[in-house]
Amino acid sequence: MSEPTNSVLAADRLFGPDTRQKDAAMVLYDLVRDLPIISPHGHVDPRLFSDPQASFGSPSDLLIIPDHYVFRMLYSQGVPLESLGVPAVDGSTVETDPRKIWQTFADHFYLFRATPSGLWLRQELFDVFGISETLNSRNAQVIYEQIAEQLTQPEFQPRALYERFNIEVLCTTDAAQDNLLHHQAIRESGWGGRVLPTFRPDQVVNLQMTNWRQGLEQLGSVCGTEIGSYRSLVRALEERRAYFRSLGATACDHASETAYTTSLSEPEAEAIFQRAIHGTVTAEDARQFTGHMLIEFARMSAEDGMVMQWHVGSLRNHNPAVFQRFGPDKGADIPLQSEYTRSAHPLLSAYGDDRRLRMVLFTLDESTYARELATLAGHYPALRLGPPWWFHDSVNGMERYFHQVIETAGLYNTAGFNDDTRAFLSIPARHDVWRRMSVNWVAGLLVRGIVTENDAAEMVADLAYRLAKQTYKLED
Amino acid sequence: MSEPTNSVLAADRLFGPDTRQKDAAMVLYDLVRDLPIISPHGHVDPRLFSDPQASFGSPSDLLIIPDHYVFRMLYSQGVPLESLGVPAVDGSTVETDPRKIWQTFADHFYLFRATPSGLWLRQELFDVFGISETLNSRNAQVIYEQIAEQLTQPEFQPRALYERFNIEVLCTTDAAQDNLLHHQAIRESGWGGRVLPTFRPDQVVNLQMTNWRQGLEQLGSVCGTEIGSYRSLVRALEERRAYFRSLGATACDHASETAYTTSLSEPEAEAIFQRAIHGTVTAEDARQFTGHMLIEFARMSAEDGMVMQWHVGSLRNHNPAVFQRFGPDKGADIPLQSEYTRSAHPLLSAYGDDRRLRMVLFTLDESTYARELATLAGHYPALRLGPPWWFHDSVNGMERYFHQVIETAGLYNTAGFNDDTRAFLSIPARHDVWRRMSVNWVAGLLVRGIVTENDAAEMVADLAYRLAKQTYKLED
Amino acid sequence: MSEPTNSVLAADRLFGPDTRQKDAAMVLYDLVRDLPIISPHGHVDPRLFSDPQASFGSPSDLLIIPDHYVFRMLYSQGVPLESLGVPAVDGSTVETDPRKIWQTFADHFYLFRATPSGLWLRQELFDVFGISETLNSRNAQVIYEQIAEQLTQPEFQPRALYERFNIEVLCTTDAAQDNLLHHQAIRESGWGGRVLPTFRPDQVVNLQMTNWRQGLEQLGSVCGTEIGSYRSLVRALEERRAYFRSLGATACDHASETAYTTSLSEPEAEAIFQRAIHGTVTAEDARQFTGHMLIEFARMSAEDGMVMQWHVGSLRNHNPAVFQRFGPDKGADIPLQSEYTRSAHPLLSAYGDDRRLRMVLFTLDESTYARELATLAGHYPALRLGPPWWFHDSVNGMERYFHQVIETAGLYNTAGFNDDTRAFLSIPARHDVWRRMSVNWVAGLLVRGIVTENDAAEMVADLAYRLAKQTYKLED
Repeated sequence: MSEPTNSVLAADRLFGPDTRQKDAAMVLYDLVRDLPIISPHGHVDPRLFSDPQASFGSPSDLLIIPDHYVFRMLYSQGVPLESLGVPAVDGSTVETDPRKIWQTFADHFYLFRATPSGLWLRQELFDVFGISETLNSRNAQVIYEQIAEQLTQPEFQPRALYERFNIEVLCTTDAAQDNLLHHQAIRESGWGGRVLPTFRPDQVVNLQMTNWRQGLEQLGSVCGTEIGSYRSLVRALEERRAYFRSLGATACDHASETAYTTSLSEPEAEAIFQRAIHGTVTAEDARQFTGHMLIEFARMSAEDGMVMQWHVGSLRNHNPAVFQRFGPDKGADIPLQSEYTRSAHPLLSAYGDDRRLRMVLFTLDESTYARELATLAGHYPALRLGPPWWFHDSVNGMERYFHQVIETAGLYNTAGFNDDTRAFLSIPARHDVWRRMSVNWVAGLLVRGIVTENDAAEMVADLAYRLAKQTYKLED
Repeated sequence: MSEPTNSVLAADRLFGPDTRQKDAAMVLYDLVRDLPIISPHGHVDPRLFSDPQASFGSPSDLLIIPDHYVFRMLYSQGVPLESLGVPAVDGSTVETDPRKIWQTFADHFYLFRATPSGLWLRQELFDVFGISETLNSRNAQVIYEQIAEQLTQPEFQPRALYERFNIEVLCTTDAAQDNLLHHQAIRESGWGGRVLPTFRPDQVVNLQMTNWRQGLEQLGSVCGTEIGSYRSLVRALEERRAYFRSLGATACDHASETAYTTSLSEPEAEAIFQRAIHGTVTAEDARQFTGHMLIEFARMSAEDGMVMQWHVGSLRNHNPAVFQRFGPDKGADIPLQSEYTRSAHPLLSAYGDDRRLRMVLFTLDESTYARELATLAGHYPALRLGPPWWFHDSVNGMERYFHQVIETAGLYNTAGFNDDTRAFLSIPARHDVWRRMSVNWVAGLLVRGIVTENDAAEMVADLAYRLAKQTYKLED
Repeated sequence: MSEPTNSVLAADRLFGPDTRQKDAAMVLYDLVRDLPIISPHGHVDPRLFSDPQASFGSPSDLLIIPDHYVFRMLYSQGVPLESLGVPAVDGSTVETDPRKIWQTFADHFYLFRATPSGLWLRQELFDVFGISETLNSRNAQVIYEQIAEQLTQPEFQPRALYERFNIEVLCTTDAAQDNLLHHQAIRESGWGGRVLPTFRPDQVVNLQMTNWRQGLEQLGSVCGTEIGSYRSLVRALEERRAYFRSLGATACDHASETAYTTSLSEPEAEAIFQRAIHGTVTAEDARQFTGHMLIEFARMSAEDGMVMQWHVGSLRNHNPAVFQRFGPDKGADIPLQSEYTRSAHPLLSAYGDDRRLRMVLFTLDESTYARELATLAGHYPALRLGPPWWFHDSVNGMERYFHQVIETAGLYNTAGFNDDTRAFLSIPARHDVWRRMSVNWVAGLLVRGIVTENDAAEMVADLAYRLAKQTYKLED
């Protein structure tokens, strides 16, 4: 692999330009660049690791078709999703030639200037495939061939890259009703990689999801029981959590549009559940049920010790035409204004002081960082603040996070880094951006006399490795 | 014109202090400093250009009396608007001596320290009139004379300055019912300047505006028909759009307090319109009608190709005493919290994917940049995000815009720069601040290895010139 | 006192690393570092100064037990408040050994990395006690002894430190019904310090405060009358304001959860007050009464000239378990999203143009800085914006404040600095952080050519000293 021919892959990239700060950053970066990767939350398909012979397919299968971060940018400029090979729900024809798809992508690569996807892709192409040229219309096919050829080789299979990437643990996200066969297969294969499931029950507790009933039936089926009551639902969820834990899971994950929580009595919860079963549930019913179940999940996490992740504030499938034709997760999920101080109050009043609970809270509304989340995390023992999420997993998003969160929350009420990605190849690049931005921030504190050298050295290792491992109870 | 005697007019002003970044900024600035000015949205009076002999009046007529950016700052510190010559609605006496007005302004010039108005005024005084001293109580009258004398000369008439400023196109903002006589006169005069109208129908679709009925009658009058129904209103608007296009208009402009949109059936819209005609319209009626008309205007823009500008979130005339005595646009318009994800959903569901529509959206609520607007613009093909608007058209406002918008929206879902000013003389200074802040931002990306040199060179030209020209279909 | 042995106490701390900017900052800092301290708003106990022999107690009594900024951070990481000596409401046992409390604090001192409390504590330990080592588990007891020993000496008594700190005026915050005996004693003692009361009537106008009735009775008692009507309440408040003024008070202070204001008729206000007296008041009643009283207080301030401070947006006592066991002010007050444009409109319509009124407005919601507060302060003559409050009184909080407020509001519609602290020892450190961040900001403007050298020199003195003195009418 040759040295990069352009400055965008320089050793000091992302660091601020001031010489004193950059020198400090370089020293700190040396402390963390080679630490193993802890990936406690993400969406990589476990199937990649259950079969030792699994491969990534073509360059377009690997880097474009499954990555909504990538294709939504082209869509926003008028490129049809069909031409990028994104499969239609009804199975109708879309582009299938990976070279054509790659060419369209390369023709529009300039759209990624100054974006996180642009940074990650460039670093992936260089670090994994040795490609240092900026992709464009002219070099598209040559670069395609270079990647395609390498992808046929054994050292580019998922398990090999997992090892090359120095990943210590990789957590996937799995439906409550998932049988975790791939996780079982990984454990039984004798392979040394640590790939753990995460328990995500959204589909069976969000009463207005289109596939709620289907999820409930699947859950009943894996539990060998019919789930006809709220009480049986709670029992099934507790049973599944135990099963997930038996396969190494240390965490759960919950998503909701708002941070609304409420405590229902058991008869109230049961009545709503029965309305859902009978198809007469209202939007307000569903809102209350979700708000209630979040407190129930806090109770379960306090009892069984699973770390409770809570992702708030995405309005899914904003574009009805795209949703109808291509389904969910197509780059059309849009953040909502969020409110935590009043909304999360019932949950925090009940479990915020409970030392058995660890809750990691995520937001898409940065205006809540300094105002609500840092102050809540800086008070409640159960609460830690998750890293910058989704759109905010970026150079500037991280700077805003450090500047707006830490002074009030304190570093030790945060949770390290999550890559949260389904794009396996982007994991090292994402962690590297976090590590670079972390050391750049700490170097800024150091040269401004806000922290000592000893503090700085500990903080960067905490940010890069220890906080995530400890928060998610991954010390094994 | 002599070299500036103070550092505030230094060649490297506004650039960050780091040497490496500044050097990069200076190189990039050389690429854009002399590009022609595209001014696709503003409020300059077309009358300045229809009469070849038009003049700007006294220094106070030019720089103080019509500029609410300027007089509101003095008002906030207790200076009566009367003493600044701002005309009262009832025609009662206000200060008329331009020298006295100028002295009051100079006495308070320190109030503009670190403000955009301060930056623009200083640059105007130097670049246009060769004045490099900071205005103060002592030098006020001398500087007044220097300006007044120059304003009597032909090279300081509006058309001459238009040419000296290297303006390629200047768009005004004109009521739907405006007969555009000045625009006709400009076209027929043979003068080479390109001054285009923009279609703004707010007055006739906002049913609770105090002068709605008057606007509607004027609209009927220019259309030669009585507008007694919703259907006839829509027809009249479509007819006027065609007339505006015949005089070169490429864009419309719409303002609303919120981003609320809704689709009414034709009978519903008609019923509300009839209540307005009969004086029984409610606030909720008006809200729905405005929300409905925004979708109607999106339809019209999709059909006739006029770029749809949408300015959201100003609560006009917040100060009742000032409004009663001095009328609208007196520096008392205050931004509102805004919400787009749910509010604009009906419009975007209907037209967001329509490749014929180009919508440019503006906000006064910066907390929506990263959370809602960048994510919407980064998905919907019809949508572009307008530049930092009004109070945010500033050094820090631009930095926040670049940092909060581009990573998610991508540069190419933005719209370049608008000066949005009624102060003609400030146009070059405003564009220069944008160009300096653009190159400073891109230089920062360059020295941090986020973009290549080639990317950087293209981005600064896009920001300074090409994006505005292309977004507003001004390529002719 | 020896030179600091670590860089965190370097002479250039907190300044940006760029050499040119730092040099400018150092020059500007020399202009303000030794200016007297104006402390126009805070919560220091006047009892410290009424008794010439008052002392601070043990190091833990001084620095830990009364400071919720400090103990909430340890609480958030699972340290019980009992172990920090925080007294329980019911008088049950908590840790009483100050050495044990100090050890627990030192064991967790790393939690304060990069926080304002960390900065202040370090500077206090060094500047007041000559301790330059970073506190940790090992040096805890040695440092405890060093502090304890000094605290027994006369030059570490409150009056001596007041003088050493070069405080020109210190305003406390006192309930409307307070008899101000300590303030009287200070005046009568002949001591040269200027410690002034501030009138805070929240307890008697917030009808749903748990101790409202008690406050009302106390108010009646100090006024020698029974307060059985709204009218008598207003009369009593006006009488108390005169009494506070007679002891040197120049300002009042009001807190509310939201910025809601409304004008009630006298019969409406009376009816609500009677419901409160009879125990049938509703939450909506209380909200309206608070909103009405804010306008009443604006009237009183316009009439008697007392500066009206208004602190908006804290939800007090968010954690019910902590409140029940330890009472208010225990680090569990959480900010709320705030809205000013519509909410404060009734008050500003009534008194915003009144040149007799000076109102200083504070927020915990930074998203309102550029959007609402800077625009309101940049228009209404009566309004000034208070400095970054509470959680935002920090390095980054100040940077955000300067960047988001000043361009629109102008510097001269702000109010200088408040330390707002009950931790007397932290006052010089807090003012020093403000002065350093002020000069750093102004130095940035200077090297970017945004202000002249003359402007810069005036601005830093305004920020450090003159704005606070003039805003709060402390010119004597």
